[in-house]
Amino acid sequence: MAGYRKYHKEDKVSYALGVTLVFELLKSKAEYVNKVYIHSSMNKGDTLDKLIGICNIHEIDMVYTDKIFNVLSQKENCYVIGEFRKFKGELDNNLSHIVLVNPSNAGNMGTIMRSALGFGLNQIAIIRQAVDAFDPRVVRASMGAIFSTNFVYFDSFDDYKDNYPDRELYTFMLDAKKKIYDISPKGKFSLIFGNEAAGLPKEFAEVGTSVVIPHTAAIDSLNLPIAAGIAMYQATIMKL
Amino acid sequence: MAGYRKYHKEDKVSYALGVTLVFELLKSKAEYVNKVYIHSSMNKGDTLDKLIGICNIHEIDMVYTDKIFNVLSQKENCYVIGEFRKFKGELDNNLSHIVLVNPSNAGNMGTIMRSALGFGLNQIAIIRQAVDAFDPRVVRASMGAIFSTNFVYFDSFDDYKDNYPDRELYTFMLDAKKKIYDISPKGKFSLIFGNEAAGLPKEFAEVGTSVVIPHTAAIDSLNLPIAAGIAMYQATIMKL
Repeated sequence: MAGYRKYHKEDKVSYALGVTLVFELLKSKAEYVNKVYIHSSMNKGDTLDKLIGICNIHEIDMVYTDKIFNVLSQKENCYVIGEFRKFKGELDNNLSHIVLVNPSNAGNMGTIMRSALGFGLNQIAIIRQAVDAFDPRVVRASMGAIFSTNFVYFDSFDDYKDNYPDRELYTFMLDAKKKIYDISPKGKFSLIFGNEAAGLPKEFAEVGTSVVIPHTAAIDSLNLPIAAGIAMYQATIMKL
Repeated sequence: MAGYRKYHKEDKVSYALGVTLVFELLKSKAEYVNKVYIHSSMNKGDTLDKLIGICNIHEIDMVYTDKIFNVLSQKENCYVIGEFRKFKGELDNNLSHIVLVNPSNAGNMGTIMRSALGFGLNQIAIIRQAVDAFDPRVVRASMGAIFSTNFVYFDSFDDYKDNYPDRELYTFMLDAKKKIYDISPKGKFSLIFGNEAAGLPKEFAEVGTSVVIPHTAAIDSLNLPIAAGIAMYQATIMKL
């Protein structure tokens, strides 16, 4: 009898909590799914039938138990959990990237993944120290976008830059002189964002083109996923 | 001896949790502050001295107790709580507005307030049913922007429209034909957003100009505060 435990970042597996997320998981990463857990409160009907059908096709075990829900899910109305093996992404050097330097908040990372996928920028470099992208809170906030995102961790920004040298770099910094609406990338680019509280370290002013999203003095800064969303919108404007 | 209880939306007061938020509260709405509570783990030093100084100027009682923290704050490192009377805003008919139709998530509303203040759009109409803007989770997510925001509840959108008739209306809808980068408001305007899950009801297609923020088919929609942030950016672009 398996004992269930809370998620830890060292684990080989993570979890999609809730039926909508599990469908997204099965749509994009079925080959990584170990098991789908069903809670006793899950209604019989079309949704469950569809889930059973998909699991059958992919020969995924369905386990009927409430125990794992007590351990992994604080939310009400979570009656399906998908357990998946962590997958490895690879960045495409021919595409534009998002670079997150020391992101610390799981919800923010998930929200950024969702926006990035929405703007066709689902190539994300994550510079350590950084939150664990497989944290179930990232998975949830991404609304499943994580399953269609290529993300790779790097120990330093230099490490990233050495691997992907040939592109326009835009660093988002509050004291930048250039305004975001004045940029229009011609080729492939990387949009580079700092930590929620600290922003990018000063030395990033020397990296590529430093830009700011102008805002009133009434706030200290825009929320990170908002700034990233606006930047992605502006950088891809009229391409969608 | 006062018994402390959790926040309820019927309460006459709400709370700013944490020292940063309490400073924002005192900066913008000191006249509404009833009390400032200090936890026994709050360090002596410059920050506390500054807080004491400001409270003295405004003749605000400081209460040294841990009890209210156990009731109101789940977060670690929350050592200061500001209790304030709910204040009433008024929308300025000469200014542009944000209109939130049936917003349901407290964190989202706070994040939108922060962006709105950042784009000089701190006039927010909220159409019921809607989350309580004074919920401490809204206050927190707003990073204090709520204390500089004029927000007013309306029972229906018509009610809002009747009171503020003379402006450009933009409704954000996924099936709109017009793209957001094609709009450039000339006078005062209102940006109108629907509920997180449901969006705006169909009939809003007949209200003003219906617009969409284009995104790939890989996501169902952008997260509401992201969409609102991009819309505010585009509507005020080059004015900041």
